[in-house]
Amino acid sequence: MNQVQIIGVKDLPIIQKGDNLAKLICTAAKNQGTPIEDEDIIVATHVIISRAEGNVVNLDGVVPSKFAKTLAQELEKEPALVETVLRESKSIVRMGDKHLICETRHGFVCANAGVDKSNVPGERNVALLPRDPDRSARVIRRKIRELTGKDVAVIISDTHGRPLREGEINIGIGIAGINGIRPRVGETDLFGYVLKVKRTAIADELASAAELVIGQTDEGIPVAIIRGYPYLKSDEAKATELIRKREKDLFI
Amino acid sequence: MNQVQIIGVKDLPIIQKGDNLAKLICTAAKNQGTPIEDEDIIVATHVIISRAEGNVVNLDGVVPSKFAKTLAQELEKEPALVETVLRESKSIVRMGDKHLICETRHGFVCANAGVDKSNVPGERNVALLPRDPDRSARVIRRKIRELTGKDVAVIISDTHGRPLREGEINIGIGIAGINGIRPRVGETDLFGYVLKVKRTAIADELASAAELVIGQTDEGIPVAIIRGYPYLKSDEAKATELIRKREKDLFI
Repeated sequence: MNQVQIIGVKDLPIIQKGDNLAKLICTAAKNQGTPIEDEDIIVATHVIISRAEGNVVNLDGVVPSKFAKTLAQELEKEPALVETVLRESKSIVRMGDKHLICETRHGFVCANAGVDKSNVPGERNVALLPRDPDRSARVIRRKIRELTGKDVAVIISDTHGRPLREGEINIGIGIAGINGIRPRVGETDLFGYVLKVKRTAIADELASAAELVIGQTDEGIPVAIIRGYPYLKSDEAKATELIRKREKDLFI
Repeated sequence: MNQVQIIGVKDLPIIQKGDNLAKLICTAAKNQGTPIEDEDIIVATHVIISRAEGNVVNLDGVVPSKFAKTLAQELEKEPALVETVLRESKSIVRMGDKHLICETRHGFVCANAGVDKSNVPGERNVALLPRDPDRSARVIRRKIRELTGKDVAVIISDTHGRPLREGEINIGIGIAGINGIRPRVGETDLFGYVLKVKRTAIADELASAAELVIGQTDEGIPVAIIRGYPYLKSDEAKATELIRKREKDLFI
């Protein structure tokens, strides 16, 4: 067939702390006539994971440090937000032009250490990144298997800006059941030329593909099913493998 | 429906200089039972564009400069290849660890200025990037409309490594008929929060999504049809709008 389907999972309820996401996803997928199948790839935005895991902070309860206040003034941001960002950060990678680009405790380099206002209920609430997105992905994968008997891959996505290019793309910050990198070295091309360096960041490409149905904020679709892509299975994969080490990065 | 299909276009012939790509794509799509429809997004890898446009260089005919020879020695690359890369470059952005990251004459920052050995017939041949990928995309779009009466978008893709993240992803280097950036500022989220900064690099996400069917080198699928994504139409869009200006880039 050589066709891949990207299916938005509609009519999920507003996700609350303690919700069984796997069950809600399976039910919603079934209700819309596209029940989960073996080898589906389930992509979920990190915000619903954080909401289900209760990883949400009310800024009114955050007391900013002196350093956070200084940064906040310089960046024209709210001190409690900057304090929250700093608490989520291992280091500040770049600062300027009102942007605060941090290395999160997981090692992701992104604006505001992934602290996110959008799609979080409550005016003063922000979502943090999941504590351990790979673990969150593994839990959803395991529960889907328990509920349906189906073996799926799970990717937790986040929206990241990036150097060199305008606009944001979705990338994978947590994965389960799928190799995040698809090594191509040694594969031959159309003319028998052996590829020397290509390694496809497939977890990121799948997260970006899912955005084609997820990216409709007003419709409230936080989950996509990608069906028909023959991915490389792995029980040990980690999204942190997609983080380029500083010593191997010509730009950091 | 909220479903997006990604359809690989199979059984295209080996693309030669002078080939009418639009016609070949329409015929192949029709032959496999998925004829082009209105509002399809056609994604084609840059190498077949360059081959059709004759933008291929035989390294045996390239005389390297002294500078190219010096670089080649340092980077352990072939002097004629380095010379070809330099001719395609406006500047060298980073060098080291056997990598030569250049700004192409179009303004793209990528390894070897996009000079590519894979999927090019002839052992000593390399493909350059298309001279004007937006123009190449426009030509294909126009010809598809002439042949079929269908209004489509066209994206020419390339595989790029990037700072911060391991592995390569596909991005859009030439576009026609579609806005490369989907502005989200002003849209509201699920809870009525107005998005302040989000601008989705949709041309890159679509190029990455296409890789899910294109990325099978051995099957020789250089073109994908993305169907069902409601894109923002534009007759003036340019892929160069996705290039972040240096003065706005915290990493350059």
